[in-house]
Amino acid sequence: MNILALDTSSRAASCAILRDGALAGEFFVNIGLTHSQTAMPIVEKLLKQTATAPGDIDVFAVTTGPGSFTGLRIGISAVKGMAMAMGKPCAGVSTLEVLAAGARLFRGYICPAMDARRSQVYTATFENTAEGLHRICGDEAISIEALGKELAGLSSPVLLVGDGAALCFETLGEPAHLCLAPERFLHQRASSVGIIAQKMVRDGKLVSAADLAPAYLRLPQAERERLESAHDNSQ
Amino acid sequence: MNILALDTSSRAASCAILRDGALAGEFFVNIGLTHSQTAMPIVEKLLKQTATAPGDIDVFAVTTGPGSFTGLRIGISAVKGMAMAMGKPCAGVSTLEVLAAGARLFRGYICPAMDARRSQVYTATFENTAEGLHRICGDEAISIEALGKELAGLSSPVLLVGDGAALCFETLGEPAHLCLAPERFLHQRASSVGIIAQKMVRDGKLVSAADLAPAYLRLPQAERERLESAHDNSQ
Repeated sequence: MNILALDTSSRAASCAILRDGALAGEFFVNIGLTHSQTAMPIVEKLLKQTATAPGDIDVFAVTTGPGSFTGLRIGISAVKGMAMAMGKPCAGVSTLEVLAAGARLFRGYICPAMDARRSQVYTATFENTAEGLHRICGDEAISIEALGKELAGLSSPVLLVGDGAALCFETLGEPAHLCLAPERFLHQRASSVGIIAQKMVRDGKLVSAADLAPAYLRLPQAERERLESAHDNSQ
Repeated sequence: MNILALDTSSRAASCAILRDGALAGEFFVNIGLTHSQTAMPIVEKLLKQTATAPGDIDVFAVTTGPGSFTGLRIGISAVKGMAMAMGKPCAGVSTLEVLAAGARLFRGYICPAMDARRSQVYTATFENTAEGLHRICGDEAISIEALGKELAGLSSPVLLVGDGAALCFETLGEPAHLCLAPERFLHQRASSVGIIAQKMVRDGKLVSAADLAPAYLRLPQAERERLESAHDNSQ
């Protein structure tokens, strides 16, 4: 079985191909170009370099959120397009689970934190033991201070990953029980999207291209402003 | 500073670009094509996708061994060629250090094991603490049984990585203090080659393209056979 996985949920973009559970290839780029210029070229180059035809792909996987609204829409649209054209199912994967899966070698608590602007982060906490990765709270959009309080209650070391990790580490005063992943381990990787999608295949959690949808934790800024303006006008 | 890093020392091939210490991009392929067909195309695609010109590269880094003799020669030749053409220095990096650096999120002992055929592995052992990664023995080519005896003396958990890791884990009977990295963390990555090369820049350990050379732990098969045949003929 071939899984094509794509992530464009933050500043970096990556795609990966898993062939029968093994990583056949991965292309990761983090130079701040808009993903509309990056996503399809890296997919095309990866398909070519792994000698894979689009028709060989059985499942198309993508991070559906949380993350950058524009980034999510580009990734989901690209995957919808490919899956619809090839008549294949999709896997919509939580970006925070992808970040935690990328840190699987760390034993203890793993806390992905994505920069949500306005001093907030998209976050969740996972416990990683020899038995596997267990989610201990749902995806949420909270202030960095609130996250600090949640993490203060955990006993063993907590690893921060994600593009908001360094901001949290600094804002919280670099407490001793928190550690910051080295730069190259901070970002979500499409290989982890593929690994989670593989589990979703086994668990029967695939969806059609038509049903694939973003999972926002907050309303986009334009909608927030529209609602606020409607609220102001009604007063 | 831009570092271009390449690894073709085993079945997988990868290249990466580090820009001022951050990973700008990485292309990893593991489909068993000969590296002569893979190495330069992935470098070319990565340069293009990260908007990097060959003249922008300040240091060319490559794994110099241990590993597949043919793979090492291809990677070193490609890097020598690029560095010589651009008049830039090179960093020759130990493949086993690259494997250990890729597992930096694991706290405890990290044991890279590369399949050297004939029931042997190329190996070394590192201890990874909050302070950093410390080598506790030099690179060696030993039998899996001898490695098992060395690892039996270590107290905290030992993580096996590398393309010989699964073979060691099975041959040694899957002892409780050893753990096997998940498949996508088993392979050396060019991003880790770049990270080590960056340290070599700081430590003044770069070499000229002319001086870049493979670091074999064993003689290639052809030379072993020639020596054995010379020995037989002299008797």
